[in-house]
Amino acid sequence: MSSKPASKVVAPLKDELDIVIPTIRNLDFLEMWRPFFEQYHLIIVQDGDPSRKIHVPEGFDYELYNRNDINRILGPKASCISFKDSACRCFGFLVSKKKYIFTIDDDCFVAKDPSGEEINALAQHIHNLLTPATPFFFNTLYDPYREGADFVRGYPFSMREGAPTAVSHGLWLNIPDYDAPTQLVKPRERNTRYVDAVLTIPKGTLFPMCGMNLAFNRELIGAAMYFGLMGDGQPIGRYDDMWAGWCTKVITDHLGLGVKTGLPYIWHSKASNPFVNLKKEYKGIYWQEEIIPFFQSVVLSKESTTVQKSYIELSKLVKEKLGPIDPYFQKLADAMVTWIEAWDELNSAPAAAPAADGAKKDASSSTKKK
Amino acid sequence: MSSKPASKVVAPLKDELDIVIPTIRNLDFLEMWRPFFEQYHLIIVQDGDPSRKIHVPEGFDYELYNRNDINRILGPKASCISFKDSACRCFGFLVSKKKYIFTIDDDCFVAKDPSGEEINALAQHIHNLLTPATPFFFNTLYDPYREGADFVRGYPFSMREGAPTAVSHGLWLNIPDYDAPTQLVKPRERNTRYVDAVLTIPKGTLFPMCGMNLAFNRELIGAAMYFGLMGDGQPIGRYDDMWAGWCTKVITDHLGLGVKTGLPYIWHSKASNPFVNLKKEYKGIYWQEEIIPFFQSVVLSKESTTVQKSYIELSKLVKEKLGPIDPYFQKLADAMVTWIEAWDELNSAPAAAPAADGAKKDASSSTKKK
Repeated sequence: MSSKPASKVVAPLKDELDIVIPTIRNLDFLEMWRPFFEQYHLIIVQDGDPSRKIHVPEGFDYELYNRNDINRILGPKASCISFKDSACRCFGFLVSKKKYIFTIDDDCFVAKDPSGEEINALAQHIHNLLTPATPFFFNTLYDPYREGADFVRGYPFSMREGAPTAVSHGLWLNIPDYDAPTQLVKPRERNTRYVDAVLTIPKGTLFPMCGMNLAFNRELIGAAMYFGLMGDGQPIGRYDDMWAGWCTKVITDHLGLGVKTGLPYIWHSKASNPFVNLKKEYKGIYWQEEIIPFFQSVVLSKESTTVQKSYIELSKLVKEKLGPIDPYFQKLADAMVTWIEAWDELNSAPAAAPAADGAKKDASSSTKKK
Repeated sequence: MSSKPASKVVAPLKDELDIVIPTIRNLDFLEMWRPFFEQYHLIIVQDGDPSRKIHVPEGFDYELYNRNDINRILGPKASCISFKDSACRCFGFLVSKKKYIFTIDDDCFVAKDPSGEEINALAQHIHNLLTPATPFFFNTLYDPYREGADFVRGYPFSMREGAPTAVSHGLWLNIPDYDAPTQLVKPRERNTRYVDAVLTIPKGTLFPMCGMNLAFNRELIGAAMYFGLMGDGQPIGRYDDMWAGWCTKVITDHLGLGVKTGLPYIWHSKASNPFVNLKKEYKGIYWQEEIIPFFQSVVLSKESTTVQKSYIELSKLVKEKLGPIDPYFQKLADAMVTWIEAWDELNSAPAAAPAADGAKKDASSSTKKK
């Protein structure tokens, strides 16, 4: 589809970023992304049957983990990684040693901007992550760090340094990320509106974070990017990224970090089955009516000075405040603790230090290919 | 400039909306707006020398107030209305009897959208005001009530009714609304980015409200749309709309109302003089470093159940908390009370009742023309 030679595409941060892809099928979708992804390292998390062979197009530099790898690497702690759900993607965040992560679903293709130009989604995410966010006050001309824009009259000067950006949340043209009821009610709705903006979600405001087209600074927030317990053996699905988004936003707010949303767009090709989705979602749909007020009211203590400490404190609050809704939340709270233990085990350097380059001590027997 | 016959333009709410224009010059800019404004009633607030004759193009239905009219109508309470500053526009909000207000500066022209179509800014504002806002949770696909959009997955269903929209804040192509320092540093910057979005400023987040292209529901929030003491005899200028924006946002948050920003764009033709602006702004630039934290921490009491009560409570907090910065804030706090007294005197019907049509009891001797 794209005939651009890869050499023409500048690949910023190519040694500092991993692309994480959860999948159950051959990754032919990568062909379309070749000019943009080819110079980066991929971490593929194979969901479902580990005996199935996933085909990755030639020329990509990747490592691939299936369920057997996950069990071997994490041992009993593998219980915190979901099975038969794209929530398994967070295993890729855990084993990465890079500073930045971009994660994308395998039904997401390259979108075009209104001028017909193919959008380098990864480059836009990197730009979002490398420029500050503005969580403390709203700028009406959107991202003030963008070419041709600035802070408007009345924006306090002391706040113009902004905050480090921890998360860049990208959007979707074509199939919008709707829940099952909305899919059922509006089966033909397509997103055709290209909104040429990046903006910071203000401090204190929650948002529905979608994992389809998402980038983050792993050093700043990686340990909170846990996608929860979904899929096989769990009472819900399709709330993995939402869970990560709520936790992440509360912790970025607590630590003075920023979350951006808007550009870049990807082209989302397939709507998932709304009937299947409804089955996965229905408990989440009513639980979230209690979960959201919980997250809106969470106040973390001053002692929680790191992502890990904040996440452990949050897990206790989840057990205490959401546990009474359903035993699932007690199990989830325990899994949050297990996740942090696994994180600390695989990431022995302090979270704030530069990521170590090179070999992963535990992942050596997984499939690696260059 | 526009050759469209007025009859082709649908004029929604034409009997329920006043267009308020503060000015010191002939209103030739109205020619360009003729197809969009001709069916509405205009309230022109003439600033500066009252003996000067302002020319209004033929065919517009308007009433015009100069300083003598303001003094006559308000008597001693006229002290709360600024002189030699566009802050005088709020006098128009006071004497209107309509449910909705659109206010625009006389250096704002009709902008074009990316397809080259002239933008009916007023129609977009009305659409913004007549559809709910979403202040309690962020929707990543922007305004969920817009054609082709909806609430995304993970948006709590209980919040999908939204909140009544009190304010619609429009933006500017060409000359952006920058402060004097930014004007000086970036004299040639022009806003050319058309961002095709309307969004709600989340609850708890302040924003810099610009009065150049602004609409609001006068019944819901009019009494808080006081533009403060600026200009002649005052230590600052160019903070009139900012002041109104901070007060308004705190009160809409308190009362469960919404504020939208984004579309529509107008074409802002002239940058004001940055040297003059710097003189007007410089106290505001350092005062706002204390004002913003004050407004971010304001909590209004449950007893403040109306805009007027909330505004009076806010005036007391301004006196107590900002008064120590400068005696100006004590004077401003008093003027806030005077404004509410004037509001109640001219708007004897309860704020929540439908606006009375027809004659204004006090404005009968001002210039009226059809």
